[in-house]
Amino acid sequence: MVKPIDTVRKTISERQMLVGGDAVVVGVSGGPDSLCLLHVLRELQQELGLSLHVGHLEHGIRGEESQADAAYVESLVREWGLPVTVEQGDVPNYAAEHKLAIEEAARRVRYLFLGRVARQVGAQCVAVGHNADDQVETILMHLMRGSGLGGLRGMLPVQTLGAEPWWSGPTLRLIRPLLEVSRSDVEAYCRQHGLTPRFDHSNLDLTYHRNRIRHELIPHLETFNPRFRELLCRSARSIADDYDYLRSQSLEAWGRLARERDSAVAFPLLPWLELHPSLQRHLLREAIHRLRKSLRDITWTHVEQARVALHDKTAGARITLPQGLFLFVGYDEFVIGEEIYSPDLPLVPAEPLRIELPGTTVIPESEWELRAIVLKRDQLPEEALCNVEPWQAYLDLEQTGEQLVLRGRRGGDRFQPLGMGGKSKSLNAFFIDAKVPQHIRDRLPLLVSQSQTHIVWVAGYRIDERVKITEQTRQVLHVRFVRGG
Amino acid sequence: MVKPIDTVRKTISERQMLVGGDAVVVGVSGGPDSLCLLHVLRELQQELGLSLHVGHLEHGIRGEESQADAAYVESLVREWGLPVTVEQGDVPNYAAEHKLAIEEAARRVRYLFLGRVARQVGAQCVAVGHNADDQVETILMHLMRGSGLGGLRGMLPVQTLGAEPWWSGPTLRLIRPLLEVSRSDVEAYCRQHGLTPRFDHSNLDLTYHRNRIRHELIPHLETFNPRFRELLCRSARSIADDYDYLRSQSLEAWGRLARERDSAVAFPLLPWLELHPSLQRHLLREAIHRLRKSLRDITWTHVEQARVALHDKTAGARITLPQGLFLFVGYDEFVIGEEIYSPDLPLVPAEPLRIELPGTTVIPESEWELRAIVLKRDQLPEEALCNVEPWQAYLDLEQTGEQLVLRGRRGGDRFQPLGMGGKSKSLNAFFIDAKVPQHIRDRLPLLVSQSQTHIVWVAGYRIDERVKITEQTRQVLHVRFVRGG
Repeated sequence: MVKPIDTVRKTISERQMLVGGDAVVVGVSGGPDSLCLLHVLRELQQELGLSLHVGHLEHGIRGEESQADAAYVESLVREWGLPVTVEQGDVPNYAAEHKLAIEEAARRVRYLFLGRVARQVGAQCVAVGHNADDQVETILMHLMRGSGLGGLRGMLPVQTLGAEPWWSGPTLRLIRPLLEVSRSDVEAYCRQHGLTPRFDHSNLDLTYHRNRIRHELIPHLETFNPRFRELLCRSARSIADDYDYLRSQSLEAWGRLARERDSAVAFPLLPWLELHPSLQRHLLREAIHRLRKSLRDITWTHVEQARVALHDKTAGARITLPQGLFLFVGYDEFVIGEEIYSPDLPLVPAEPLRIELPGTTVIPESEWELRAIVLKRDQLPEEALCNVEPWQAYLDLEQTGEQLVLRGRRGGDRFQPLGMGGKSKSLNAFFIDAKVPQHIRDRLPLLVSQSQTHIVWVAGYRIDERVKITEQTRQVLHVRFVRGG
Repeated sequence: MVKPIDTVRKTISERQMLVGGDAVVVGVSGGPDSLCLLHVLRELQQELGLSLHVGHLEHGIRGEESQADAAYVESLVREWGLPVTVEQGDVPNYAAEHKLAIEEAARRVRYLFLGRVARQVGAQCVAVGHNADDQVETILMHLMRGSGLGGLRGMLPVQTLGAEPWWSGPTLRLIRPLLEVSRSDVEAYCRQHGLTPRFDHSNLDLTYHRNRIRHELIPHLETFNPRFRELLCRSARSIADDYDYLRSQSLEAWGRLARERDSAVAFPLLPWLELHPSLQRHLLREAIHRLRKSLRDITWTHVEQARVALHDKTAGARITLPQGLFLFVGYDEFVIGEEIYSPDLPLVPAEPLRIELPGTTVIPESEWELRAIVLKRDQLPEEALCNVEPWQAYLDLEQTGEQLVLRGRRGGDRFQPLGMGGKSKSLNAFFIDAKVPQHIRDRLPLLVSQSQTHIVWVAGYRIDERVKITEQTRQVLHVRFVRGG
């Protein structure tokens, strides 16, 4: 059997947890994990050039017992000749104030306390006692919630504390030196060194789920593979590296593409669409994370709905994201932001507007203009004829006529949407079928043939069947919205 | 409830399973999955422009019953007006011949058969009936084996058949259109359409493990989260994309770094060390996979042992990999190959060799030479003095003297390895402590001071404490092995 002290030495070195001469605040509850951690670090103190300081939070959950715990830890640590800070916290109050479950409140109050102690004693590093079994339980909890790589990598051996919005003060390095030591090895170590844990602090965390994972699910999984816990921890370690690499790549893409604005982030549409789906998902999540400092409530469905709208380039699409955020598909970019974003789309003119043809028609009181040119049929590349770009269209000039007007929708508008076999449809029915977002229906510019009084193009969405390019087309009208100078 | 046919339509489109006008061979065992698959594809035949052909393998495991299954499938498929090929296979014989478990033999014989049918009818695509529950079971089996992303992504909706060494003939596209339909929906579909499955073919696959996963473990996991199966499939989908991206990146690195040789692959050491750990692991696995067409028996330990030796630049290290492969750390590259690789390292001269100083000493009957130059103390960058590069050293010229000889080890050799406080040690003891690979101990060149008759440098490993650079050093001897012209 490998001794916990050797495992910890290896973990500290391999994971580069400590820089020589580190001052470390050790969180000690008095349970077996934290007593073992403190005892081991004290053994390694000289070898690693550490200066240790103990922090104990009297959490106020269990009344007099909490006080007795604090007294026990304080006297034990003093006996070992180490400095100790004991503070009284009020977890139930913090939980009520921030509307949190007691476990989450306890976690935050504890870390905030350890952070304060670190600042007081000038330490950059906080050590806590999570062990390999805690790791397995955490990974399984994430697995059952449908987590991606970010969750399946489990707790990190070295983590920066301070990215979350509830944190206060400068960031700190959080290390977990026992992360590769099993719970049974921790307990054996305590017995062997005569350490009598005051109570199992981890019980504080023991939600009903975690308790059942520990006592029912893991033993069940071990009937399939007795080495299950060890193998899962290895997978997590390899996944953590994969995740780290993916994250470095997505941060590189972020730097290249993201345009950060006041409480919003924009991305150019086409370069984003060219990214690998893996990076697309990472960037969407990263945007939400930066705006909200949390990935709470983001589901697969949110991210996939956003990706579908972006792939279809659904003009004006507004996707609801969690935490009061929206994603809005604009002209050549999309925006993730807090407010109902004022859409960056070509505007309908207040009055019907005659189109210069060929020429450029400036749309009054907007930054948009419509450019119209006439091309010969054989000048066009095939792909131009698919008419899939929302804000430009290729039309048969003979069918549209040269008298064209731009206007907004009117009651009774009908047209023959391309690809429906020439069936006439009311514009309202088309809007519903094509899932045109409600809030932009009044704003979409329609290109209307004056002579024939029919809609030839619902800008952003679809041309009319009768004006599509065919074998017979001789002259092509190319119309395109662009931002004016 | 979403109908299976709609789910399949969506899966086929989203995963780009079919190109229009595809000829598809559908593997039909007569069980519920394959009957449902065939029925659904037949419904979609016109819409998707498919041409279907059924393949049924009479696997010969269950005697007369197998024959009755075959007759049933054949008559049903003819009734539906589809062409069908029935063939007799001999799974037990294939299993015996290739020393395989019966389940694995059945899988191979079945795919080989479907591949033959596809070639006969000119199809590029084979469809099989794995459903969403099969997917969940597969992922859990991989999870319990400690799999990385490659396993946790589960079965792929679209996969190329033919990369494995047992395959014969050209590659084929394998698709799994039912991968997002649950088993209970498959069963409901069969009831609804009056399909009477002959027997549950999947039982053929039902190893003891899989059976217990299906009937015990998944129900247990669902007590934690009733949506567990759905969420796990979503995770797998996102992991599949992450894996695909990582793979594309590691193939890019492969193209840049890998030097493929006869039954071996070499990588330049320093550029490989600069890769992210995630890519390092992928490249090592990729090398084994390309040499052996299989990742069988590769464990975490193999890969990590290799990474440690490479990071330490352990000169001459030979790491045992699975499937008869070795990794050998050479001079400025490392090699993964079949044979005990003839090490690409500086050789000991047959006779003791006087060193030109300053100058270049060619080592006879080798491609190596030793270059020696003299530098002033203050000309050196700090990092040069750490002496961590295996094949070069910085020494105090006053301590080494100018009369130096290169030779192999001799009985009774001793030196004072750097960093041990000047303790003298026998060379043999040092070799053991420094884990110098046994097979290169006779081959490591030793630089010996003739005047003082002591070893000043064990090339590849360590200099002597007495010749290290100190504050008092005035002249530095820089010795370095390089490949000669």
